Amino acid sequence: MVVDTIFKNAELYNVFLKEWSITDIAVLKGRILFIGNTISAGLSSDNIIECENKPLIPGLIDIHLHIESSLCTPEVFAETLLPLGITTVVSEPHEIANVFGLPGIEEMIRASKDTVIDIFYGVPSSVPSTTAKMETTGGSVSSRDLEILMRKYPEVICLGEVMSYRSLINDFYNISSGNMESKTIDLLKTLKKNHPTAAVEGHCPSITGLDLAKVLYFGVDSDHCLQDIEGMKQRFANGMFVELQEKSITPEIIKYLQNNNTDGLYSFVTDDVPPDILINKGHLDYIARKAMKEGLSLEKIITATSLAPSTRMGFRDRGIIAPGKIADLIILEDHSTNFRIHSVFKKGIIAAQILKRKGLYTFGSDFMDSIKISASSIPDSIYSVPIPKETIGKSNIKCRIMRKNKHNTYTTAEVRAIPVSGNTVNWTEPNLNLNLVIVIERYSGELQIAQGFLDGICIKNGAFCSSHAHDHHNILLVGDNITDMKKALNWVITEKGGMCVVSNNKNLAAVNLKIGGILSDSPMEKLSKEVIEIQANLKLLGIDHINPIMSLCTLTLPVSPQLKITDKGIIDTIKSEIVPLFIN
Amino acid sequence: MVVDTIFKNAELYNVFLKEWSITDIAVLKGRILFIGNTISAGLSSDNIIECENKPLIPGLIDIHLHIESSLCTPEVFAETLLPLGITTVVSEPHEIANVFGLPGIEEMIRASKDTVIDIFYGVPSSVPSTTAKMETTGGSVSSRDLEILMRKYPEVICLGEVMSYRSLINDFYNISSGNMESKTIDLLKTLKKNHPTAAVEGHCPSITGLDLAKVLYFGVDSDHCLQDIEGMKQRFANGMFVELQEKSITPEIIKYLQNNNTDGLYSFVTDDVPPDILINKGHLDYIARKAMKEGLSLEKIITATSLAPSTRMGFRDRGIIAPGKIADLIILEDHSTNFRIHSVFKKGIIAAQILKRKGLYTFGSDFMDSIKISASSIPDSIYSVPIPKETIGKSNIKCRIMRKNKHNTYTTAEVRAIPVSGNTVNWTEPNLNLNLVIVIERYSGELQIAQGFLDGICIKNGAFCSSHAHDHHNILLVGDNITDMKKALNWVITEKGGMCVVSNNKNLAAVNLKIGGILSDSPMEKLSKEVIEIQANLKLLGIDHINPIMSLCTLTLPVSPQLKITDKGIIDTIKSEIVPLFIN
Repeated sequence: MVVDTIFKNAELYNVFLKEWSITDIAVLKGRILFIGNTISAGLSSDNIIECENKPLIPGLIDIHLHIESSLCTPEVFAETLLPLGITTVVSEPHEIANVFGLPGIEEMIRASKDTVIDIFYGVPSSVPSTTAKMETTGGSVSSRDLEILMRKYPEVICLGEVMSYRSLINDFYNISSGNMESKTIDLLKTLKKNHPTAAVEGHCPSITGLDLAKVLYFGVDSDHCLQDIEGMKQRFANGMFVELQEKSITPEIIKYLQNNNTDGLYSFVTDDVPPDILINKGHLDYIARKAMKEGLSLEKIITATSLAPSTRMGFRDRGIIAPGKIADLIILEDHSTNFRIHSVFKKGIIAAQILKRKGLYTFGSDFMDSIKISASSIPDSIYSVPIPKETIGKSNIKCRIMRKNKHNTYTTAEVRAIPVSGNTVNWTEPNLNLNLVIVIERYSGELQIAQGFLDGICIKNGAFCSSHAHDHHNILLVGDNITDMKKALNWVITEKGGMCVVSNNKNLAAVNLKIGGILSDSPMEKLSKEVIEIQANLKLLGIDHINPIMSLCTLTLPVSPQLKITDKGIIDTIKSEIVPLFIN
Repeated sequence: MVVDTIFKNAELYNVFLKEWSITDIAVLKGRILFIGNTISAGLSSDNIIECENKPLIPGLIDIHLHIESSLCTPEVFAETLLPLGITTVVSEPHEIANVFGLPGIEEMIRASKDTVIDIFYGVPSSVPSTTAKMETTGGSVSSRDLEILMRKYPEVICLGEVMSYRSLINDFYNISSGNMESKTIDLLKTLKKNHPTAAVEGHCPSITGLDLAKVLYFGVDSDHCLQDIEGMKQRFANGMFVELQEKSITPEIIKYLQNNNTDGLYSFVTDDVPPDILINKGHLDYIARKAMKEGLSLEKIITATSLAPSTRMGFRDRGIIAPGKIADLIILEDHSTNFRIHSVFKKGIIAAQILKRKGLYTFGSDFMDSIKISASSIPDSIYSVPIPKETIGKSNIKCRIMRKNKHNTYTTAEVRAIPVSGNTVNWTEPNLNLNLVIVIERYSGELQIAQGFLDGICIKNGAFCSSHAHDHHNILLVGDNITDMKKALNWVITEKGGMCVVSNNKNLAAVNLKIGGILSDSPMEKLSKEVIEIQANLKLLGIDHINPIMSLCTLTLPVSPQLKITDKGIIDTIKSEIVPLFIN
């Protein structure tokens, strides 16, 4: 019998029998038909791929990520990942859902139909992640939406990360007694009742013991947060699947995994990879490489990147090299620790050949016009920060200020006296090392804005504006002078979404994010170049942070410490409440 | 915090960390909340179960069985299994589907809603298992029915065993090229497209190599047939899940499993357990006991009876003792090889307490009147076997005869000369050691019948009649004299379904199978007693077979060798065609 392709003399690791062997693999219509001696089985092909005894491993599977973090379309994302060996991903379309709700998720699914890798989706479980009191949000996702998505789309396979773990723990008694309802509980109940075999992704930073058990009790049974040995062991022991991000690939963790038979209980995931990192370092392949350099064996890496994540998600058609499975394959150069990829095959076809296809999907016009404000409607008064009447006449005023930390996305809540000029704050006074931060609500067009101040790491002689600002993507504007801020804001609004850096009234770097104000429709080369330029220019202007963009675009994230800002005002994120800018 | 139950001082095996420890388990609302020191966790309960350091293991899970083989309702089945430690089953309602199609399956699901164990279902993939040319059948199951079942009922979780493995192999080229359609292919395609995470149960007797690969290619990835070492290793290596029935629990198989780390790749299943075996030997507990006696460790038995089958089916809420999982638990007396059960808990409640509930479900009247013929409409002529005109005058005539084998359900096709009297066969002549076999079509009421002869193991001075006759449950009547046969047939028809043994015009033993003519609504004590009596009486009348009922009730099964009979005639099952009774 003639098959489409035969991989000859591949070194194959059987994850079940735990042995390497040199063998052939016959592929028919994108699936593996047979492994063994193809000649004695009577199989032949016009397309023989000689593997020269190199290791052949399954395509990499990443079950926890958010495509929107890469600022690109699913199509561009897929084309970028395939040559790196990633052939299947499960994405939670959290950001597009924050902008558009269900229609946004459905558009992402449509945009993923014919991509060069397989893109599955989780239903976002925390959209919006805040309340109308705290922030104006775009879309929301209800249990009704969950039902629609799960029933309509076979590629929707799980519930995305349940972020409200703290409520599950603190309100455990009330929730488990049925005395308390919440969206999260509603989503979990609906999923468990109607789709009991679907996975529930978790977000359980550092919790252990009874707290961990309480989260598991509600069916949340994976964690992708930073791991230490004790926490990871507790997760394993209690049946919680562990998803290791790059930050968890520490010498201690790898040593534990290498020396204990916990294969199948963990996988690697990327979560959020911005375009510049994607281009410079790689994706899941980079994590595999890092784990291997830390001492994890190739055999364990194979399980952690294919069988384990596949089983976790309930896939039946991938995750191992076996008859009936999709022929997603990587030929490695050798067993060396740098995990060098020789070639990648999706459904039995070499990546280079697949990547010739271009331009499959254009997002609908509804999704290209999501900034509901016009540049001309913005009054200059937004740059003026009036002080309370009773404080007029004083030379300065005490303000709550966000002090940016250098190594993470947190801020410290600081109180600082700022000079006053007349009845407004004189924030533009030179050498203050102060930025005005403005958040402009973009969904209703009603010009709801809030003002706050940033110090610590901040912009000098310039401005930054972005319509991609976590979690709800109102427009974020940061700067130390009005001219540059005006120009930056004008650009983002006029372009219907994007990110730009302005200094001396000059647009130094920008990326257009037309799709929902959060995604670019550019090819990855262009997009990553633009993002790298923004990062570099922000650094030059003073944002001395490992990820300048993320450093700024999380100023609006009211769930991480300590003082943040939304369109409704300054948020004390510890108390989860709006606090006044000024302290009398 | 107060929980419902605390299991104190249980010896628990952690299947992930692979270690035993003495610990406590806290249960809340039927689910495990916490494992560890409940005092330091601040958990208390009014209901403390002292485990006295005895092993606590998960409830047993059987993922491949057919409830109808036990001739009882789901409710009675569940009540019989719970005290044996079986807390979850996946049943393929193959037989009720053969009688009623979709409505029968739905009625079984309804009848399983409030049973004391959890009953899940597979969609029968081979109903009917024959063609209208070969046999009159009752219900059928299409891919449309599959969609209805999968979408409407969360408890329908897989595709039942694909019996047409031979066609998948022989027609591989045509099927894989899309040149050939069949019901099986249609069901597989529908399932894979719309429910890709659902399991597909397989039936792959003794096939290996490329044949095995071809079956796997279509997504059929388990096998519950008799295993030998080489076949089982090939299945493991190729990612096929192995389901070990009692017959596969051989010293060689157990030795291999004990000495190789293949945990998670196999489970135990019962497939078909008749009521007499269920009462005398047990169920999945019996297989576990047998495996343990053959040398399989308790640790491996735990995985094979809980984690492995649970993962195979994609369950997320059971299969391990961990927070969030259903508290289906067994306390064992000790580690000894006889797997002695101390007590069983379903959702944290001791079995004895649950079993007080009674009589939850009555089958709808549609399902109690499935024999569409009346006793009075049966003419005496059915007992007369006319010979071809051209042979009238001869003293005997050559017949195709089913010779019953002693150790299985096969027959040998024999040719034998039988005496003739006038223009009919003189089959009642004494000392012939011959039974007349009549199959009466029961679905249309049109009195379609076929006649054949049985020798070898057959009934002496009596008759047997059954409306439960594989696969399509037309009425089977076997005997060596007309009086007893008439009485037996009359009883089965008048009772609207059942099985009986008659001798000397006396009904010696009988079981009423009113539900669809295949299931009893009696309690298990009554049912099993009746079946044991039928078996004993059949043995006394000459059916010297390990399972006399099955020996006779598979005479109508036209897919197993060699000569069988349906309402359409004598079937050469090797050629799959109807053949004449007489040979000229």
